[in-house]
Amino acid sequence: MKHFADRLNAAVRRCQTPALVGLDPRLDNLPRAIVAAASERTNSPAKAAASAFEEFCSRIIDVVAPLVPAVKPQAAFFEQHGPAGCAALHNVIRQARAAGLIVICDAKRGDIGSTAEAYADAYLAGKSPDAAAWGADALTVNPYLGADTLQPFVRTAIERGAGIYVLVRTSNPGASTFQDRESDGRKLYQHVAATVEALNTETLGESGFGIVGAVVGATYPAELSELRQQMPHTPFLVPGYGSQGAGAADVASGFTANGLGALVNSSRGINFAWQRAPYREHFSEDQWEQAVEAATRDMIAEFAEQTPAGALREQ
Amino acid sequence: MKHFADRLNAAVRRCQTPALVGLDPRLDNLPRAIVAAASERTNSPAKAAASAFEEFCSRIIDVVAPLVPAVKPQAAFFEQHGPAGCAALHNVIRQARAAGLIVICDAKRGDIGSTAEAYADAYLAGKSPDAAAWGADALTVNPYLGADTLQPFVRTAIERGAGIYVLVRTSNPGASTFQDRESDGRKLYQHVAATVEALNTETLGESGFGIVGAVVGATYPAELSELRQQMPHTPFLVPGYGSQGAGAADVASGFTANGLGALVNSSRGINFAWQRAPYREHFSEDQWEQAVEAATRDMIAEFAEQTPAGALREQ
Repeated sequence: MKHFADRLNAAVRRCQTPALVGLDPRLDNLPRAIVAAASERTNSPAKAAASAFEEFCSRIIDVVAPLVPAVKPQAAFFEQHGPAGCAALHNVIRQARAAGLIVICDAKRGDIGSTAEAYADAYLAGKSPDAAAWGADALTVNPYLGADTLQPFVRTAIERGAGIYVLVRTSNPGASTFQDRESDGRKLYQHVAATVEALNTETLGESGFGIVGAVVGATYPAELSELRQQMPHTPFLVPGYGSQGAGAADVASGFTANGLGALVNSSRGINFAWQRAPYREHFSEDQWEQAVEAATRDMIAEFAEQTPAGALREQ
Repeated sequence: MKHFADRLNAAVRRCQTPALVGLDPRLDNLPRAIVAAASERTNSPAKAAASAFEEFCSRIIDVVAPLVPAVKPQAAFFEQHGPAGCAALHNVIRQARAAGLIVICDAKRGDIGSTAEAYADAYLAGKSPDAAAWGADALTVNPYLGADTLQPFVRTAIERGAGIYVLVRTSNPGASTFQDRESDGRKLYQHVAATVEALNTETLGESGFGIVGAVVGATYPAELSELRQQMPHTPFLVPGYGSQGAGAADVASGFTANGLGALVNSSRGINFAWQRAPYREHFSEDQWEQAVEAATRDMIAEFAEQTPAGALREQ
């Protein structure tokens, strides 16, 4: 099976959950033992940070690989530590793929013409991790530059069995600044949504979804519900759950009736669970991996109980 | 002098030109001798490509550093070759800074909250190259996610004497898809322009420009002219000259009367001049650096004769 959405839906069904674990390593939040051990391996602060990120993410991958279908490394935190950080991102993607996880690289790339082709070629490996330098299954993409700039990503994704997730309605407080501007009876994000849905009608897999996903923030549940109706063939990536304030009820309308159609992401709430309520009451810093597992299992249980994702059990 | 626009304008005045040389290395277009030599240094295709890119860009930097104020490496082409490519980008930025050039990293980043902070911290070194992992003076940024997502970039830029260039009206054929959508009597790119100009009124330097630039394509001269009026305090980065079809007359309206206010970029037309008319008639592949110099000098002469940049001579 090569089609991205078919692979994704098979993984969601196998794990019986749409939970997506973000990998957002931040040096100040890492377990001190990992940072200390990394500092002993090199005198370069950037290389030490990168080494610590790789260790941290690798251990999260070990914990969550049996539980969830996919992970989403955030490129910015790796790039913050320069070329060494980029090498760590590369290795983390490979480790996640080797563990059987679908990897969505959250890098929000976008450019014109042959430059967009270069980004697509760089990140979109699809079915075979060796098909691209960074080995990801999918990449987040910014639509501002225009519909023609999405085409190189779509073409490469089709060729390689990869996917993209186009920013439609983001989860930040100021998302409305430009995304809510209304023209011809529709807001900007709805025009972007129409472009994305149209691209999918040409790339449908057996599961009824295309390979061009949409990023739709859980922090705007009304928009999420409306976009689920407007984009029946589009897989969603839903950020904003957990640390950004949205709960299971807020994401419920992002799914189709059979529990498919959306991956819901939690990053900090899982990565740093041992620093946060309620887990910090139960787990010490040395037990941070148990806290990661508990937070992941709790998210999975919440989705199963409070959203159509519960229907995945019967499939 | 720490303010980005003041540093930039001083460099433009010193060189008497607003010519910006893009660094767009593409493996298929590189001089064969450089690719062959790089292949002998390593068995890894990615490392060989990265090594060839570094050599190629380093030699372009040597040619253009005495002639132009700034260079613009395109991150996508480096990222295409994975972590090794990223290391090459890092080294190219450092070499350009060491040669006295202002470096605009064209990576079109953008994200929310603390993730945007991570990108800003990663790229925006400003006055001191060591202040950020990637050491650039400025970074191109995508506004789709909202005005609040520009703030972390602006804050870091102010702190470090760096700048950003926000995508306003891009140079691609499909730029109009979303950027021309009209609401409240203005097109989307005009709303973005208003946001950018407003940010600049709080960051003005002695030269009368702020640190939040705008990317405005030369391929849309009417919009360029109109935006120059709408954004009197905003430095422009104008792509689309040369290979994308725009000429000196098309970019003329992007300048203020004294020849400031815009950098005009040419990438392929300079990088690969020896493969293109009229230079391929005069230079062999071995003479590619002479072709780079000739194309750069010709661009400078065109701007001096056909745009307000000619006024720089009298300052």
